[in-house]
Amino acid sequence: MNNTTLSKFIKDIPNFPKEGIVFKDISPLLASKEARESMTQSLIAPYKDKNIDVVIGIESRGFLFGMLMADALNAKFVMMRKPGKLPGEIISQEYQLEYGTDTLEIQKDSLSSRDNVLIHDDVLATGGTAAAALSLVEQTGATTVGYSFIIELDFLKGKDLLKNPNVHSILHY
Amino acid sequence: MNNTTLSKFIKDIPNFPKEGIVFKDISPLLASKEARESMTQSLIAPYKDKNIDVVIGIESRGFLFGMLMADALNAKFVMMRKPGKLPGEIISQEYQLEYGTDTLEIQKDSLSSRDNVLIHDDVLATGGTAAAALSLVEQTGATTVGYSFIIELDFLKGKDLLKNPNVHSILHY
Repeated sequence: MNNTTLSKFIKDIPNFPKEGIVFKDISPLLASKEARESMTQSLIAPYKDKNIDVVIGIESRGFLFGMLMADALNAKFVMMRKPGKLPGEIISQEYQLEYGTDTLEIQKDSLSSRDNVLIHDDVLATGGTAAAALSLVEQTGATTVGYSFIIELDFLKGKDLLKNPNVHSILHY
Repeated sequence: MNNTTLSKFIKDIPNFPKEGIVFKDISPLLASKEARESMTQSLIAPYKDKNIDVVIGIESRGFLFGMLMADALNAKFVMMRKPGKLPGEIISQEYQLEYGTDTLEIQKDSLSSRDNVLIHDDVLATGGTAAAALSLVEQTGATTVGYSFIIELDFLKGKDLLKNPNVHSILHY
C-alpha cells in the first residue's frame, strides 16, 4: 500500500474536538489488517537498520502501533504515560499546552544508557508532547534515534520544536 | 511459554496507586518480544475457531495487546475510549466506580449487527468497565463472543458482574 492508499484510511471529522478543528480519525486504519500491516512497515522503514532497542509509545494512541512496531523491529516496548499512572520510580517532564501545562512520565529503569530509542505517537501537532518525550529519554542517558508519526500537521510546525533531526511522518496535512 | 513463566513478566508494586493496594505492573511483559508473542497466543487461544470479526481494546492498556490480538485473529480492531475522545456519532455507557461514576464510549458505526466481538482489557478487577463494554456492544446489535484479560483479580469477583459466560484470563491473583 502506498501513502495515497493509506491516507484513505484516515477520516476527516470537521469541528472536533471543537469548532474550526478538523480531527484526523485513525479508526478506519485500525479496522483493516492490511492497512495496519502496511502502516507498521512504513513507520519502521527508516529505522530498520538502526539497531533500535526500544520503541516508546506515547499514551494512549501511541500504544496502538507502538506494539506492532516493537514486534516488527524485534525491540522492547516502553510506555510513556500521563501523570500518576506508572508505578515504581518515575521521571516526569512538564510541557506547555495552548492553555496551561501537561506532564509525561516514564519508569526510570525502563531504559538503559546503552539503548537506542525510537519514539512513536499517532500525530505530530505542536510538538510539545514529542519534545517532552525526547527530554525524558535524554534524562535516562539513552539515545533517541528518531521519531515516527502516522500523521504530521505541517501547518503547526511541530518539527521546529524537536531538537532531534530524524522526524519521520507517513501522512502530511 | 506457560502461565508460570508468563507470570514472571508481571511485577508486584506494593502500595500503588494507594496504600494497601498491590499494583500488577505489565511493563516487563511489554519489554519482551517473546513474552508478548506468548501472551498474545494465550489471549486468543479459546477464540481461534470462533469467527471473531472485531477485537475491542479498552483505553488505554487494552490498546496494547488488543492490536496484536486483532492481527493474530485477522480481525478488525476497535477502540473503546474514555468520554470526549472519539469523534463522530458515539454511544456512551456510564458505570459505577468505588466512588462516583465513569463513562465508556464507542463509535456507533464501528460495529455492525453481524459482528462477532472479543472484548480485551489488561485487568479484570471489579468488572464495572467490562460490564459497560458488554452493554455498549449490545447497543450496536453485535454479539460479544467473550472476554480475554491478561490478569484477573479473583478476590474482587468481577466475573459475577459479567452476564457473558466466556471470561478468559491468563493469570489469576
